[in-house]
Amino acid sequence: MTENKTGVVWGQDHPIGVAVLGMGTVGTEVVRIIRDHADDLCNRVGAPVVLRGVAVRDLSKDRGLPAELLTTDAETLVARDDVDIVVEVMGGIDPARALIAAALNAGKSVVTANKALLADYTGELAAAAENHRADLYFEAAVAGAIPVIRPLIQSLSGDRVNRVVGIVNGTTNFILSAMAETGADYDDVLAEATRLGYAEADPTADVEGYDAAAKAAILASVAFHTRVTSGDVYREGISKITAEDLETAAAVGCTVKLLAMAERVTDEDGKDKVSVRVYPALIPRKHPLASVNGAFNAVVVEAENAGRLMFYGQGAGGAPTASAVMGDLVMAARNKFFGGRAPGESVYAELPIASIGDTPTRYHVNLQVADRTGVLEAVAGEFAKHHVSISTVRQEGHDEGARLVVVTHHAQESALADTVAALAELDSVTSVTSVLRLEGTEE
Amino acid sequence: MTENKTGVVWGQDHPIGVAVLGMGTVGTEVVRIIRDHADDLCNRVGAPVVLRGVAVRDLSKDRGLPAELLTTDAETLVARDDVDIVVEVMGGIDPARALIAAALNAGKSVVTANKALLADYTGELAAAAENHRADLYFEAAVAGAIPVIRPLIQSLSGDRVNRVVGIVNGTTNFILSAMAETGADYDDVLAEATRLGYAEADPTADVEGYDAAAKAAILASVAFHTRVTSGDVYREGISKITAEDLETAAAVGCTVKLLAMAERVTDEDGKDKVSVRVYPALIPRKHPLASVNGAFNAVVVEAENAGRLMFYGQGAGGAPTASAVMGDLVMAARNKFFGGRAPGESVYAELPIASIGDTPTRYHVNLQVADRTGVLEAVAGEFAKHHVSISTVRQEGHDEGARLVVVTHHAQESALADTVAALAELDSVTSVTSVLRLEGTEE
Repeated sequence: MTENKTGVVWGQDHPIGVAVLGMGTVGTEVVRIIRDHADDLCNRVGAPVVLRGVAVRDLSKDRGLPAELLTTDAETLVARDDVDIVVEVMGGIDPARALIAAALNAGKSVVTANKALLADYTGELAAAAENHRADLYFEAAVAGAIPVIRPLIQSLSGDRVNRVVGIVNGTTNFILSAMAETGADYDDVLAEATRLGYAEADPTADVEGYDAAAKAAILASVAFHTRVTSGDVYREGISKITAEDLETAAAVGCTVKLLAMAERVTDEDGKDKVSVRVYPALIPRKHPLASVNGAFNAVVVEAENAGRLMFYGQGAGGAPTASAVMGDLVMAARNKFFGGRAPGESVYAELPIASIGDTPTRYHVNLQVADRTGVLEAVAGEFAKHHVSISTVRQEGHDEGARLVVVTHHAQESALADTVAALAELDSVTSVTSVLRLEGTEE
Repeated sequence: MTENKTGVVWGQDHPIGVAVLGMGTVGTEVVRIIRDHADDLCNRVGAPVVLRGVAVRDLSKDRGLPAELLTTDAETLVARDDVDIVVEVMGGIDPARALIAAALNAGKSVVTANKALLADYTGELAAAAENHRADLYFEAAVAGAIPVIRPLIQSLSGDRVNRVVGIVNGTTNFILSAMAETGADYDDVLAEATRLGYAEADPTADVEGYDAAAKAAILASVAFHTRVTSGDVYREGISKITAEDLETAAAVGCTVKLLAMAERVTDEDGKDKVSVRVYPALIPRKHPLASVNGAFNAVVVEAENAGRLMFYGQGAGGAPTASAVMGDLVMAARNKFFGGRAPGESVYAELPIASIGDTPTRYHVNLQVADRTGVLEAVAGEFAKHHVSISTVRQEGHDEGARLVVVTHHAQESALADTVAALAELDSVTSVTSVLRLEGTEE
């Protein structure tokens, strides 16, 4: 037993009370672990950790729990005197936002897996935590079971992060992996992913990159000590990726991945900015992220002293996400017991957000062209005219089916867009089949 | 500014003082970062972090530091009133052990990268930390820059770890990678590694697995909440690995790695034990650790809920190791500032250590045999007689040069040793060329 600052004596007679908000895939696992592993949790925290109640939407569903643990009144559950820590795994902005705020304002610690909420409201929630000396933990919000938030906030707190690149959405990675493997089209693979439960009935948040963008904002915030919200993230989804894109990627030794990137870039005046972006891109097959397939996630962190680190594992699912939630819960409970505090929000660096125009990338441009003398010269001329430097050009096929694959050096998005518009006007160019960014190469 | 339990008010007028013990590869980088990144450190901690002094062996060497910061009297430096945190990067048992104890006994927090010391003396050091409410951090002791201790202690604190397998020694991994790539012999590659600075003049600690064993003990301790010391680790080095071993490994789709393993095993009575072992083993080329080459490190953690996680990065070197040290230093300084505590030693599970005999593994046995009828039958007979079940047999070559490669199912080490002894006695067996374990396969 130990006495903390508020004079509470934790121990067998005064266990640490937990409320769980939401009993979906993750909540069910969290509840199971709290109940099944009470001894381990007590040993690891120093005092018993007891489930006080679970807020659900529907009381009639059998959840294998004593009725008195279930309630539809989350607000009252959060406010209970014997609830010290609130685990929010209900998702969505409302009512999660108000419930978390209420908990923090009452000095209760909060563990949440809610990336959409954190991506836009970390500022107000962190302020509430700070004002009431409560903890706000959110390891489970990004990349499921993979420890990445804690390493960024704590392990790399004495280093200078320059880049975070991750595959942080399992649905899109499953789809892109399956397309690469089978040669099938996007629509067919999406249908299969939906059937298998890897994609939701409305897959928009995943396939259009909104989920990855929320996670990118969270990663960028903790990596760069700067508040980044989802609106700061440049975002493109994978719904326009074709079987042909995967095929041409393979032909040049690459694969296509939906990347969430947060990067320190230096503008013309030598000032640091943060570029945060989500889009599908070609990466070389030898890149460590290229072999991250199916529903797995991975995050690569590059820091000044640490060099390149990679974290890999299951990015979603009930038990893996619950593992991350439980780690945070044990730490929050330990802080109650020992009187410590989670590191609060750190936004001192206040780096400006770089526009996508400030962030040159390499491009991979596919053109359908007429197979006649001078076409390469004409195409190369348009790139040169717009100051986009070409790295390699590959010509494939003959006659009507001839194709040019142009890989550029780093170029501004606007310059590339102008080039593409001009290429489309050329007589010798039948169509610009696809334009994809190329990442993960050393020029 | 904030007031902690001891009434100290940290801030511009009362910075957090740091002593660094040792100025080798890692110490030099730590000192550089503390001095060059003072602003970032102050922002991340809440108060300035100031270097009070560096203990070195030789004052005459130019280290680019003001003379008043250097001392050969580590004991007095540690005892200074204005030193709040001691960073020990001198290595070795003595005098590091006494200096760390002195710091902790004075309530000063300690950050250390000293795996040899921790592997054998964590118990006494952790007790000193506990008794004097000081922090003992050691992320840098295992796998350099890669966050693995903190994820195990904190992120996975609500999960149940079943296995930790790592490549945690860069020297041996460099040697084995080079042998696999070039086909060269052990001695030649070791000489080259020494020339390039990847191996020390006396490479024993690395090549005989002592360094990896110390790290395995530390990993096992934190993963299984059980005190494990280096003497508990079954250990074999790589000095007997031949070019032929690498070649036959490649022929069966494997590579050879020096693995540090800590594993939960269940004995005949259904009781959990911890098996901790270091040895070179074949792993399938598709295993995530198989592509970890050169001086890189990686650690795979398997937990009940998280599933399989992998952490990858630079396992040694000045700057990478300093990154881990600095992360710990910032956390220790934050705890001074905010009044929190690092998680202490957790050994409540007290799992018994499994003997190597309790830990069946698969084996890969190479035999030089006479190419005549009945040899396979005779060999298979010896395996059967000793209850070692064969998975596959491959026969190569003819006449005098015929070779049998036998891969077993899981077998007891003693049974395998008896089998090998009996095989060597067979008329049809010229010699048992090599016996290597096989890990990372699902049977």
